[in-house]
Amino acid sequence: MYRSHSCGELRASHVTQEVTLAGWVQKSRDKGFMIWVDLRDRYGITQLIFDEERTPTNVFETAKTLGREFVIQVKGEVIEREAKNSKIPTGDIEILVKELTVLNASLLPPFTIEDETDGGEDIRMKYRYLDIRRNPVKDSLMFRHKVTMEVRKYLSDQEFIEVETPYLIKSTPEGARDFVVPSRMNEGQFYALPQSPQTFKQLLMVGGMDKYFQIVKCFRDEDLRADRQPEFTQIDCEMAFVEQEDILNIFEGLTRHLLKEIKGIDVEKFPRMTFDHAMKTYGNDKPDIRFGMEFGELNEVAQHKDFKVFNAAELVVGIAVPGAASYTRKQIDKLIDWVKRPQVGALGMVYVKCNEDGTFKSSVDKFYDQEDLAKWAEATGAKAGDLICVLSGNTNKVRAQLSALRMEMAERLNLRNPAEFAPLWVVDFPLLELDEETGHYHAMHHPFTSPKPGQLEMLGTNPGDVKANAYDLVLNGNEIGGGSIRIHDKEMQAVMFKHLGFTEEEAKAQFGFLMDAFQYGAPPHGGLAFGLDRLVAILGGQETIRDFIAFPKNNSGRDVMIDAPAPIDDEQLKELSIKLDL
Amino acid sequence: MYRSHSCGELRASHVTQEVTLAGWVQKSRDKGFMIWVDLRDRYGITQLIFDEERTPTNVFETAKTLGREFVIQVKGEVIEREAKNSKIPTGDIEILVKELTVLNASLLPPFTIEDETDGGEDIRMKYRYLDIRRNPVKDSLMFRHKVTMEVRKYLSDQEFIEVETPYLIKSTPEGARDFVVPSRMNEGQFYALPQSPQTFKQLLMVGGMDKYFQIVKCFRDEDLRADRQPEFTQIDCEMAFVEQEDILNIFEGLTRHLLKEIKGIDVEKFPRMTFDHAMKTYGNDKPDIRFGMEFGELNEVAQHKDFKVFNAAELVVGIAVPGAASYTRKQIDKLIDWVKRPQVGALGMVYVKCNEDGTFKSSVDKFYDQEDLAKWAEATGAKAGDLICVLSGNTNKVRAQLSALRMEMAERLNLRNPAEFAPLWVVDFPLLELDEETGHYHAMHHPFTSPKPGQLEMLGTNPGDVKANAYDLVLNGNEIGGGSIRIHDKEMQAVMFKHLGFTEEEAKAQFGFLMDAFQYGAPPHGGLAFGLDRLVAILGGQETIRDFIAFPKNNSGRDVMIDAPAPIDDEQLKELSIKLDL
Repeated sequence: MYRSHSCGELRASHVTQEVTLAGWVQKSRDKGFMIWVDLRDRYGITQLIFDEERTPTNVFETAKTLGREFVIQVKGEVIEREAKNSKIPTGDIEILVKELTVLNASLLPPFTIEDETDGGEDIRMKYRYLDIRRNPVKDSLMFRHKVTMEVRKYLSDQEFIEVETPYLIKSTPEGARDFVVPSRMNEGQFYALPQSPQTFKQLLMVGGMDKYFQIVKCFRDEDLRADRQPEFTQIDCEMAFVEQEDILNIFEGLTRHLLKEIKGIDVEKFPRMTFDHAMKTYGNDKPDIRFGMEFGELNEVAQHKDFKVFNAAELVVGIAVPGAASYTRKQIDKLIDWVKRPQVGALGMVYVKCNEDGTFKSSVDKFYDQEDLAKWAEATGAKAGDLICVLSGNTNKVRAQLSALRMEMAERLNLRNPAEFAPLWVVDFPLLELDEETGHYHAMHHPFTSPKPGQLEMLGTNPGDVKANAYDLVLNGNEIGGGSIRIHDKEMQAVMFKHLGFTEEEAKAQFGFLMDAFQYGAPPHGGLAFGLDRLVAILGGQETIRDFIAFPKNNSGRDVMIDAPAPIDDEQLKELSIKLDL
Repeated sequence: MYRSHSCGELRASHVTQEVTLAGWVQKSRDKGFMIWVDLRDRYGITQLIFDEERTPTNVFETAKTLGREFVIQVKGEVIEREAKNSKIPTGDIEILVKELTVLNASLLPPFTIEDETDGGEDIRMKYRYLDIRRNPVKDSLMFRHKVTMEVRKYLSDQEFIEVETPYLIKSTPEGARDFVVPSRMNEGQFYALPQSPQTFKQLLMVGGMDKYFQIVKCFRDEDLRADRQPEFTQIDCEMAFVEQEDILNIFEGLTRHLLKEIKGIDVEKFPRMTFDHAMKTYGNDKPDIRFGMEFGELNEVAQHKDFKVFNAAELVVGIAVPGAASYTRKQIDKLIDWVKRPQVGALGMVYVKCNEDGTFKSSVDKFYDQEDLAKWAEATGAKAGDLICVLSGNTNKVRAQLSALRMEMAERLNLRNPAEFAPLWVVDFPLLELDEETGHYHAMHHPFTSPKPGQLEMLGTNPGDVKANAYDLVLNGNEIGGGSIRIHDKEMQAVMFKHLGFTEEEAKAQFGFLMDAFQYGAPPHGGLAFGLDRLVAILGGQETIRDFIAFPKNNSGRDVMIDAPAPIDDEQLKELSIKLDL
C-alpha cells in the first residue's frame, strides 16, 4: 500500500504520528525557506510542509520541483498547524515531510482542477479523466453510487430479484430507432441493443419471477436533444399478481426511502393527480408542484364580450404570478416578447395587474370592466399584488405555452427550490396518442399497456378517449419514472397490435414470442421504470444529468475523449458481411 | 394485490385464517368427490382442496377444468391436513377453497415444469419463460442475485464506488473480435461494445476514483465453445496506490466473504502458487487443489535406461492415482484409449501398479527393475494400492495431457466434491505468450499489464521469460478472476506496445487517449475482474453456467426464444449507411 492514511482523515488526535500519504499536488506555495503543498486524493486535502531547517535537503530540493497534479508519496510526522483552517476537516494539522517520492509527473493540466474550473464543456469532456478529479464531478459519481446501493437494498429487502436480461436482442422497428449489431456468425442478420428490457421483464413474469428489478443500460438512436444520451440507465421493475395500487405503493416506498436515506427528508404520502387534471391545471403531464400558479380557465368569464381574440379561442387561460403587479411596462413587454419566442410560440399575452388597493389594470380594459377582471382574479386565485397573465388559442398549444410561462416565472421568482422535493403521481394516462403528422394513433406508453377495464370497446370509436392503467412518477417537474399495468392476454394484445396498425404477420414476426408466452399461463402483471440519470441528478439538486455520468457523449453521440465512433477495418466489415454505403 | 400470502408461507399457526393465494396449477388430482390442486409460485407450493360437500358447486365444477400451469386465484380457509407432508414447508396445512378465479388458462406446456423435466436443452431454451418456472433455474437466478448483492455490499463497505462505464466505445482490433454498432449520426463510423471496461477503469484511476468496481456486461464476438456466451458479466475492479499484495488481500477478503455469507464456509488464508509451479505440479495454470495426484517428474529416474520412448522425451512425468492398482488389464487399456483420444492427444501411457505387498508391476518391466520403480513411486508420492500413470513427450503438450488425465481420474474417483471449496492464487504469470502459429509474442493478460520491476530490459532478449505482476484467482480448478498491476507510465506503455508489434501510429490511434492520460499524473494502479457467470455457477456447485443466466444464447450466438439475430429493414440499413455484402 502506498499510504497509511487518506488525505481526508488526519485530525488533531493524530499529531506526532508518522504517516504515509499519496495523492496529487493540488497547489504549492514556495516561500523560499518553507514550502506548503496541498495534497489531494478522493477523500480530501491535507497540507504538507517542507521546511529548510527541518526537512532533509534533497527532499526540500525535490519539493521545489513539484508542479500541479504531480502524483507524490510522502512520509512524515503529523504536526499541529500554526494557522488552523476551519474550512477543511484536516485543517488542524499538517505533515512535516521527511521523505518524498514523485510517483508520476504531470504536464500542466488544460484546465484548473478546482470546483469552479476555467475549463469549458468541450475541453472538460476531452479530458474527462481530469474533470473527474474535480469535486463536483467526483461527488456526483459517488452520490450516484450511494443512490443505486440504496435502491438495490430497498428492493432486495422487498424480495425483488435483480435479473440480468440480454443486451443482444432483436430489432423492432416500432418506437424509437434501435442501435443494431451485425452478427458475424449469422450472416446478414443483426442484433439490436435494447431500448428497454420491456419484453424480457414481462417474460420473467410469465416465468414466475414475480418481483423483478434491474439497474440496466438502455439504448436509443435518437437525434440527441440537450441532456439526452444515446445510452442511459434505467431502474427497471416489474411485478406479477398486482394491481396499479400495489405498484404505486411499492415505488412510492422506494422513492420515500431514497428521500429519507439520501436527503434526510421525510415526505408524506405522495399526492396523485389524473393526467387530465394535470393538463388542465398545469398544462403539463409532469407538473412542478413546489409552487402554485395553477391555471384558471377563463372561457366563461372572458368570452362573449367584444374581445374577438378570446371569443375565437378554444381556450382562454391564465395564471396569477405572485407579486408581479409591480412589473413596469417595459418588464411586461419583455415578458410578452418571451412568450412570443418561437420556442414558446404564443401570439400575444393579455395581462391584469391586481393592484394593492383592490382595483385592476389590464391590457384589455377596453373590453372588460373591474367586475369582469375580479372574476378573472377569482378563477386564477390572484391576490392583490399579483400579475395575471392570460393566453388563448388552441387548447393543447395554449396549455403548453402557459406551462412554459409558469415554469419561467417560477425560475425568475426562485420558486424552484432545489432543496425541496415534491413528488407526485400522475395517473390515468390516455392509452393512445394522436400523431398529428400521420393522423395515426400510437401507444402513448408502449403497445403492452392495458386499457382500463371496460374501455377496450372504445378503441374502435373514440380511441383518443381510452384511458390506460398507466402512471408517471414526477419529482419537481421532471418525470423520474413511468409504467403501466400490462396486457397479459393474447387476444387483447392482438387487438392492441391491430389498432396500432400492425398486420397480423408483423405482430407475429416481432412479438410472436411474447404472444406465445401469454398462452402458457401469464399472470396479471405491471411495472415501472425510473430514469436513473435524471433521478440521481434531481436528488443531487441539479437539472442536468451530465455530471452524474462518468463518461457522457456529446450531442452528436460522440465520446470526444476516446474519439468514438470511428471507422473500422475493411477486414472487420468483410467478416461481418456488410459494406459501407455512403 | 391478488394475494394475501405467498404459496410458501402458510404454516399450522395460520389454521382457521381466511387467505387469498394466486399462482400456477402444478398438478391436480381429481378423486371425483374431492379435488386436490398443488398451487405453485416463486415461494413454494400450497395444497388446495376442493370438496364436493364443503366447496360451492360452481367452484367445484370450475376446479375440475383446471389444467397444468393455469393461473388461478383462490380464497379459502387454512385447515390442518389429515395426511401431513413433511417434505414441503407448507405440508401441515391445506386451503379449503371457497372462491376460485381463473386468471389465465394455459396450453399444455411442451415439457413438464418439474425439477427433473422431460424437456431437452433446445425446447427449454425456446420456452425459457417456462423453464424459469422450474426450481433449478429459478433458484439459480435467485442465487445469482444473492451473490451480486453480497459483492456490492462488501465492496461498498470497503469504500469502492460502482461507476458505470460506457457501452458504446471504440473498436480495437487487438485481442478478441469486437461486436460493432454502426453510427447513424456519424456516417461510416462504428462504435464497439466493450470486451471489458479496461481502459475506462484505468482512466478512472487517473481521475482519482481510487477504488472502483462495476458489475458489467462485456461482449466478445468469438466462435463459441460450449459454455461460452457472446455477452457475459464481469465484476470489474480497480484500485490506485496499491501493490499486488493489497489487491490479493482485498479480493481474497471478498471471496472469503462470499464463501462465508453464501455457503457458510470459513476458509483460511488462500494458498499462493507461482505460474511456473502450477504448470510443473499440475500441468495447468488453474489447478484444482481439492485433491492430490501432483505431478512427479521422472526424467532423472526414468531416462538413460533402454526405454527409447522416455529417452527421446523432453519430459517424463507421472501421477499416482489413489487406489487404482486394482484396475484390471481391461480397465487400464480403456484408460490408455482415453489418453489417446484426439481431445487429449497422448501417444501412449506407461503404468505401474503399486501392489499392497510393496512390489511393483509395470508395463515396462522389461526396462525397469523394482528399484527403479520404487524411485518412480517416491517421485509421484505413490503409496501401496496406487496406480502410477506416466506420460512423456514435449513438455507443454505432455503437461496438458497429464493434467487432463488427472482431472478425469478425480472425476471418476469422486474427488471433485462440489460442496468443498479450495481457492488458490496463481501468481507471477509470464508477461508474454508465444503464438505458435505466427511466432509472435502477444500479451498473456493484456497490453496494459506491467512487467515485474527490473525485467523490462529482458523484453528484447528473452521475451518469454519476463514475468508480470499478474495473478489469477482459481476456485476448484476454474479461473474465477484475474488481474494485474498496470503500467502507469507513458514511456513504458509505448515500449510495451512496440514489443507487441504496434507501430507508433497504431498505438496512438487506438490508445492515444490512455497514453495522453498517463502524462497528467497517473497513479500506480492495478485491478482484477471476476467472471460472474462462472463464479456464481461454482458457488452454486455447478460446472455449467447456463442455468445461472436468465436468457442465454446457444452455441451459434442465437437467442432461440426471441429468434435473434434477425434481418433488419432496408430502410434501417440505409439510415445507417451500410449494405449487406453476402
